Amino acid sequence: LTGSDRFLKACRREAADRTPIWLMRQAGRYLPEYREVRKKHGLLDIVKNPELAVEVTLQPIRRFGFDAAILFSDLLIPFEPLGIPFSFARGEGPRIESPLRSRGDVERLRRVEPLESFAFTLEAIRLLRRELEVPLIGFAGAPFTLASYAIEGGPSKSFEKTKAVMYQEPETWHLLLSKLAKVTSDYLAAQVEAGAAAVQVFDSWVGALAPSDYRTMVLPHSRSIFESLSKLGVPAIHFGTGTAGLLREMRAAGGDVIGLDWRIDLDRGWELIGTDVAVQGNLDPLALLAPREVLLDRVDDVLRRAGEKLGHIFNLGHGILPETPIENVHLLVERVRQHRRS
Amino acid sequence: LTGSDRFLKACRREAADRTPIWLMRQAGRYLPEYREVRKKHGLLDIVKNPELAVEVTLQPIRRFGFDAAILFSDLLIPFEPLGIPFSFARGEGPRIESPLRSRGDVERLRRVEPLESFAFTLEAIRLLRRELEVPLIGFAGAPFTLASYAIEGGPSKSFEKTKAVMYQEPETWHLLLSKLAKVTSDYLAAQVEAGAAAVQVFDSWVGALAPSDYRTMVLPHSRSIFESLSKLGVPAIHFGTGTAGLLREMRAAGGDVIGLDWRIDLDRGWELIGTDVAVQGNLDPLALLAPREVLLDRVDDVLRRAGEKLGHIFNLGHGILPETPIENVHLLVERVRQHRRS
Repeated sequence: LTGSDRFLKACRREAADRTPIWLMRQAGRYLPEYREVRKKHGLLDIVKNPELAVEVTLQPIRRFGFDAAILFSDLLIPFEPLGIPFSFARGEGPRIESPLRSRGDVERLRRVEPLESFAFTLEAIRLLRRELEVPLIGFAGAPFTLASYAIEGGPSKSFEKTKAVMYQEPETWHLLLSKLAKVTSDYLAAQVEAGAAAVQVFDSWVGALAPSDYRTMVLPHSRSIFESLSKLGVPAIHFGTGTAGLLREMRAAGGDVIGLDWRIDLDRGWELIGTDVAVQGNLDPLALLAPREVLLDRVDDVLRRAGEKLGHIFNLGHGILPETPIENVHLLVERVRQHRRS
Repeated sequence: LTGSDRFLKACRREAADRTPIWLMRQAGRYLPEYREVRKKHGLLDIVKNPELAVEVTLQPIRRFGFDAAILFSDLLIPFEPLGIPFSFARGEGPRIESPLRSRGDVERLRRVEPLESFAFTLEAIRLLRRELEVPLIGFAGAPFTLASYAIEGGPSKSFEKTKAVMYQEPETWHLLLSKLAKVTSDYLAAQVEAGAAAVQVFDSWVGALAPSDYRTMVLPHSRSIFESLSKLGVPAIHFGTGTAGLLREMRAAGGDVIGLDWRIDLDRGWELIGTDVAVQGNLDPLALLAPREVLLDRVDDVLRRAGEKLGHIFNLGHGILPETPIENVHLLVERVRQHRRS
């Protein structure tokens, strides 16, 4: 089977020759060839230049032969057309110039025309479609995670300002999340139209929420995205971290594949959401910094817990770390490849 | 019933008139009377001065009439006698001067004589025992959380250095955790001897671990603490955050009461660990910054999910935040008091 068959079959819980593998942030700072590109170009320069975005997206495929490629881009790309300018402070994550503070700020957000605002992304996808022999995963942020950046102004530990808006100004909150859900839906539809064979919706920070808050304040907005995606005919992956207590709710919101980070055993997590849906995960990214025997033991543990059930995509529980040794990625990929399903 | 009966009965899953309530960090920066004391004294000065520690421990009991008091102290108190000096950077959490880096560093840790090294704590407990009409909860850190501070040198996001030692130097790791487990066991035994009516073991950051790592690298050490506690005849609370995927393992390690943070519904969490053990939690500390109606709705949700089962202690999922309005704490306490079990 080609990688294409393998990955898409797993998304759809169809039988394949072996477990497909790709890694979140597989194009990134752990790769010397990526660091070479970054010497000359800023992160957003790469994202906005289709040729560079294509090159960087292809780098890990050439080196490791992953079963899927993921578009090199950033969750916050929709912020600029929405009217929320941001930049990247060296090694510190995004910084939003004027975080959203009021109902007025949310009302003033601009309408986004995907074909116009994301032209560079869509062009990169069209170019990649021609180059790639494996499926390309498009992606965008889920409403909660995008809102948390827009309100906090950058990464956060406790999401205090985000929850303050959620609790104190529920109407402003719902207006913001519905606007973000609309942009994400439109953006992903345009990515699929341009050639993305699957999409991943990143709700990276949603694990900060109590399930009761998720159900009333977030789920309806995330669901609207997955409902619009279900009409596009490509599989959708629903990803988050710290979500061991939220998995049933995330499943209820939607997705053909649910992401499991490393903080729950894969088999227990899969049991919670139901084995009639596919799962992706769930190695601790720090296991890739461990000695060979420890790494292989943890990889085998994930594969053993997935067992013979249909629909497991091997991945890390979150993005690969910049300090990861290349040889450990080879070891990981080799081990998953050798693992034949009976 | 007095608070004493109520709290201890809940720990033992015996019937009581209503759900007991206390809050983690109930003596702390949200209280104006505490901030007054802090104007004149540093955090560690208060901890090491029994009269001041007693005063600060009593402040929230006087104001709110909580059903239990918790000794004002700090998780890192055992570090100084162990030979790991640290200080508090203003508003930033602890900073360890020379984080542990090698097997030699761990071998050089000193033996701790609790009666000598923790004399100030034990004296504060003896004084409190006379003053208090509610039970006093003693506490100490669990081995993983203490190790993470000792290795990272302070608070951490990904626990990269901690996991590096765990994966790369398992013998050093187990030596460190067994030493920390011994200190915690001895420290808690001395606190009970001095008059603590219950103890809480804080494994605040253990939720960063994959369950497979917890089982082999942490559980045996935490278990040794709960085994030694079980001989002391007082209830033990086992607390962590981000542990929705680790609850069964934490229960296996021990504790009469398992802490549930807000990231899992209380009823689901209780189901996972088994209703033959008591639970403590599980309101999001940020709900105390919400408007009255939202706060009460979330409080009622926790109480409803606890239902008529025996053994629920109301608490936050983590420490109360400095920004918390006093009137909301009154509202919370009043609501829990009004909730009669049928």
